[in-house]
Amino acid sequence: MNIINSLAWRYATKKFDPAKKLSNQQIDTLKQAFNLTATSFGLQPVKMIVINNKELQEKFIEHSYYQRQVADASHLLVLCIEKDTTTEDINNYFDLEKKVRGVDEATISSFRNQLIEMYKNKSIEERQLSAIYQAYIILGNLMTVCAVEKIDACPLEGFIPEKIDTLLNLEKQNLKSVLLLPVGYRAEDDIMSKMKKVRKPLNETIIEITN
Amino acid sequence: MNIINSLAWRYATKKFDPAKKLSNQQIDTLKQAFNLTATSFGLQPVKMIVINNKELQEKFIEHSYYQRQVADASHLLVLCIEKDTTTEDINNYFDLEKKVRGVDEATISSFRNQLIEMYKNKSIEERQLSAIYQAYIILGNLMTVCAVEKIDACPLEGFIPEKIDTLLNLEKQNLKSVLLLPVGYRAEDDIMSKMKKVRKPLNETIIEITN
Repeated sequence: MNIINSLAWRYATKKFDPAKKLSNQQIDTLKQAFNLTATSFGLQPVKMIVINNKELQEKFIEHSYYQRQVADASHLLVLCIEKDTTTEDINNYFDLEKKVRGVDEATISSFRNQLIEMYKNKSIEERQLSAIYQAYIILGNLMTVCAVEKIDACPLEGFIPEKIDTLLNLEKQNLKSVLLLPVGYRAEDDIMSKMKKVRKPLNETIIEITN
Repeated sequence: MNIINSLAWRYATKKFDPAKKLSNQQIDTLKQAFNLTATSFGLQPVKMIVINNKELQEKFIEHSYYQRQVADASHLLVLCIEKDTTTEDINNYFDLEKKVRGVDEATISSFRNQLIEMYKNKSIEERQLSAIYQAYIILGNLMTVCAVEKIDACPLEGFIPEKIDTLLNLEKQNLKSVLLLPVGYRAEDDIMSKMKKVRKPLNETIIEITN
């Protein structure tokens, strides 16, 4: 199946089949895809919580405007940002780069210092916002990977982050929830799976500038 | 090639081969992929400018911190948000849904009104931020589609949006530039293409909660 057919196949699943589970191999693909996503300066300020626990998933429902997908899906992915991107985080990145790529300090020190300065000059709100942007890049990647792998998914911005942060004790882990992505298999009677896609025509969304 | 190998193949291309052009078919795939990306409530508040004009691409360089990819890449994609999401935009969406899906007004009117109210209660900054989030989802999707299609790309947040808005006369079109994505083919001597990926180990980025 080509990539456009895969993207046409996917839809925001409204009703999952609660009896069907994703395999460990499928979940492993999603974990790896998450970790391979490009992030700003490679800093990876986002963590993913993979929940496979019906009791806990049920508790998400009341904080997600009663969208049952959080509980009925095979697994629930929670994208969380780190509450701050610190000088230590940036140093950790460069130390890892040195280890992985075998480069020496002289090669990277100027860029290391530049990046530390750049992040120091941002407010914590700006650093958090930058991390949130990266969570959305990850969401875009994961939805496409799901489509390619024939995994159904439903991106959810509609939930109360503070409640989820409390439920998962994220404060203590220096994390804040940003996005939910229930993943699994569509229910056979999900009427949304039969609906045609609603998209503006290309000539309304794309502007071409050629020679 | 499986999807994980594709994601491992991609990297933020630092040097493009200016002589190699993407085919019309490849560009068409990117346009369709762009348009098929999921957006919040399906409102599609993002437009994509596809630039295939060396003279114009050269002008991006000075506004992109002298990153030559904007000019050397085969094509330059510019993701822009609409400056506001209005009641008219929301009505247009539902009118399109009625046409595409053949649903009647009674089925959708309650949700239509709810969404109009929800957007009215946001500030223009909040509406713009929501549109920016959607641009990042699109970026995530496009990078993955590029990887699958063996198209090289380099996501760029590092540019001066106001300068690009002026260069492309976006103000008049009610648009604001948010992200750049040069696409094309890596230069054979791009040293970054041989570098190992720097990623935290999965046990540092993923938290699992199972039964």
